[in-house]
Amino acid sequence: MRHSRTASRATARPTTEVGRAVPRPRGAENGPGAVARTVLPGGLRVLTESVPSVRSATFGIWARVGSRDETPALNGATHYLEHLLFKGTERRTALEISSAVDAVGGEMNAFTTKEFTCYYARVLDSDLPLAVDIVCDMLTSSVIAAEDVDAERGVILEEIAMTEDDPGDGVHDLFAHTLLGDSPLGRPVLGTEATVNALTRDRIARFYRRHYEPARLVVTAAGNVDHAAVVEQVGAAFERAGALAATGAEPVGPRSGQRAIRAAGRVAVVGRPTEQAHAVLGMPGVSRHDERRWALSVLSTALGGGMSSRLFQEVREKRGLAYSIYTHTSGYADCGLFGVYAGCRPDRLDDVLKICRDQLADVAEHGLGDDEVRRAIGQLAGSTVLGLEDTGSLMHRLGKSEVCWGSQLSVDEMLERITEVTPDDVRSVARELLGQRPSLSVIGPLNDRQTARLSGAVA
Amino acid sequence: MRHSRTASRATARPTTEVGRAVPRPRGAENGPGAVARTVLPGGLRVLTESVPSVRSATFGIWARVGSRDETPALNGATHYLEHLLFKGTERRTALEISSAVDAVGGEMNAFTTKEFTCYYARVLDSDLPLAVDIVCDMLTSSVIAAEDVDAERGVILEEIAMTEDDPGDGVHDLFAHTLLGDSPLGRPVLGTEATVNALTRDRIARFYRRHYEPARLVVTAAGNVDHAAVVEQVGAAFERAGALAATGAEPVGPRSGQRAIRAAGRVAVVGRPTEQAHAVLGMPGVSRHDERRWALSVLSTALGGGMSSRLFQEVREKRGLAYSIYTHTSGYADCGLFGVYAGCRPDRLDDVLKICRDQLADVAEHGLGDDEVRRAIGQLAGSTVLGLEDTGSLMHRLGKSEVCWGSQLSVDEMLERITEVTPDDVRSVARELLGQRPSLSVIGPLNDRQTARLSGAVA
Repeated sequence: MRHSRTASRATARPTTEVGRAVPRPRGAENGPGAVARTVLPGGLRVLTESVPSVRSATFGIWARVGSRDETPALNGATHYLEHLLFKGTERRTALEISSAVDAVGGEMNAFTTKEFTCYYARVLDSDLPLAVDIVCDMLTSSVIAAEDVDAERGVILEEIAMTEDDPGDGVHDLFAHTLLGDSPLGRPVLGTEATVNALTRDRIARFYRRHYEPARLVVTAAGNVDHAAVVEQVGAAFERAGALAATGAEPVGPRSGQRAIRAAGRVAVVGRPTEQAHAVLGMPGVSRHDERRWALSVLSTALGGGMSSRLFQEVREKRGLAYSIYTHTSGYADCGLFGVYAGCRPDRLDDVLKICRDQLADVAEHGLGDDEVRRAIGQLAGSTVLGLEDTGSLMHRLGKSEVCWGSQLSVDEMLERITEVTPDDVRSVARELLGQRPSLSVIGPLNDRQTARLSGAVA
Repeated sequence: MRHSRTASRATARPTTEVGRAVPRPRGAENGPGAVARTVLPGGLRVLTESVPSVRSATFGIWARVGSRDETPALNGATHYLEHLLFKGTERRTALEISSAVDAVGGEMNAFTTKEFTCYYARVLDSDLPLAVDIVCDMLTSSVIAAEDVDAERGVILEEIAMTEDDPGDGVHDLFAHTLLGDSPLGRPVLGTEATVNALTRDRIARFYRRHYEPARLVVTAAGNVDHAAVVEQVGAAFERAGALAATGAEPVGPRSGQRAIRAAGRVAVVGRPTEQAHAVLGMPGVSRHDERRWALSVLSTALGGGMSSRLFQEVREKRGLAYSIYTHTSGYADCGLFGVYAGCRPDRLDDVLKICRDQLADVAEHGLGDDEVRRAIGQLAGSTVLGLEDTGSLMHRLGKSEVCWGSQLSVDEMLERITEVTPDDVRSVARELLGQRPSLSVIGPLNDRQTARLSGAVA
């Protein structure tokens, strides 16, 4: 493999246009109108995107709850709960849940972030009713048995240990903590060994009842799906669980927040006897509601989003100093992060950080070249359109949009927003963001002298 | 994320049928006939699979060369060369290569295995001519400049260091070495720091000239592609490079070999201060030409291919002893490997290994239940059909089939081969393979007493 991971970890909504007509997948010929939205009693939203040219469907349910909603003592509860919803319902054992999906070759999984949780299954279109029935059953009727809580605690402690053994991933958690501290957004999604050990069945069950009410959920399906049929199946499944009492509840809208990040010049080092030092150099970014996010996605792509990007060229292609180097952005309801990741042997870290710092400073001062901006826009546009072939990506876009923005932006609108980004917009956001004093997080085998030198990298 | 990685790492050709009509993606309505094959002068093969319902295309070129073709001193040369082909041709700089693909939002990448190497680009269908031109240019006309060899050496040393920092991945290299020793198949694809440091520009360039002749290459394209157009573009690109001299050469057929694996009861431990111990327990498997591979893929899936699999249930669901546990198979020209991976904290390793060992022994003796076999067949079938929507997977299947088998098995034929697998076939392959004495590879923080106990796990 030549190319490392790509640019985004839970990024701002990317996307674009390329200075020519952007082709659309056949299934999207009816255009953005193929997205339909229905609100069921209890405030349960159901959104579908119909792509009749494919033979698969991805079904998902999104809960507007993430680790951000946890008190310090509850840290890890959202993710723990995500695991427990697979462990059995009033009608099905854990084995019955997984067997049913495995037997038809489907993929079922879930993920928890700081601001939302998603459960999904990708199946052949003819198996969609099965997927709807199972995922709805899990979300509405989990039993959360005490013995399962205990067995699953072991699994989660292993997951935490596994993450510790992956410093290239763990350094992103460290970076969030460096900039956000011991706050709801700064704490790890998985929790810690101590908090996971302290969580009880009752606390998790209370958390479940509070955060999984229909008004807080968004149901999504994309692929060869029929909106009316999905609405009917979802309605029936929630009815059966007694979860659609006609309360007249309104859907719970997107989350708001007041968090601002002002961290600058912070350095956090976790010593570890690894081969490489894993570093993130970065600063506050923008929230997902900030209009500058379009320009930032272009900036981030041009700086570290591909093999032709500035940092890849300067650090890897010209000097061979790293294998993996990329930029990433995270946008939350009220704030965001921007960072450059690099992994390299410790004796190269000073050089790598200096190049990154110099490039950030250069772009803060001079912006990017027109060709770099044009290329980044083309890259975002092309990859967005390529992503439309995957029903999983479509489902993801549907759910994230509804949960995070409370509305859908069509592909055409997204492409338009990105095409409109000018070199001046990029220069402006670069000046504002990259002009900030950076902070730095490192996991690796640094000696005291090397650690002391790091403060120079953020001076 | 709940579910760990899935079952296969460079597996035997999987696939299946499910006891009901398996739907096909719309684009495959013309059936397996949509695969076309042309041999150009010089023995260059061009294969395409046309899926008119999509708007993307994946183009790839496969070279029948892998780390298996290296002498001990050349270990890592195939992979090093793979990197260098991105560094510039007579017509393009490295930046021009990457910029062209980035600018249209394409993904370009490559990978090297023990028996073949593949370069590919996934783009919108309208950009296919660009992808063809660039990838053909890289394969035929790389300059391999001395200064690029030196810069890229640093990148590869970083890649090796990064792999060392990922013990959950590295333990598979260790397992191959445990069973195959210091032999062409037992050595790592990346080489070692010592061999990579010793490789010279001249040796790599000689390796390039020898292994990238047209008769040794297979060109593949899948998606919304027209066979005649692709053949014409590829022919023109190779012509321009002077690489299609009408030598009357015949395509070089699939590789053969004489390697047999007889390892049993071996234990290899690499001490490392990680949180988890990462273990592979396994034994010789079957070659990719072995008819038992179909039954083995069913067996492997039922044992460790999904959440409902035996080992996932016994180790994770019931006892919470691991987060990640799965089986994998590797099939080479003449031999193969079968293994169970588990990652867990060191104090749980004895229990985990005992459960795995007991399950393997149980299945060797009694085979699997009819329901387990049925479910595994359904799982393989469904995931194969779901995979047909992805032009990258289709391109991968085309190329691997031609390089490894010299022929294409249609999806229907593949589904048939798997449907035919009976519980008796599975029982038979389980007895033959799982009845062998296993070997064990572990990376982790074991103390001497724990290490000493491991020999008991393979007694």
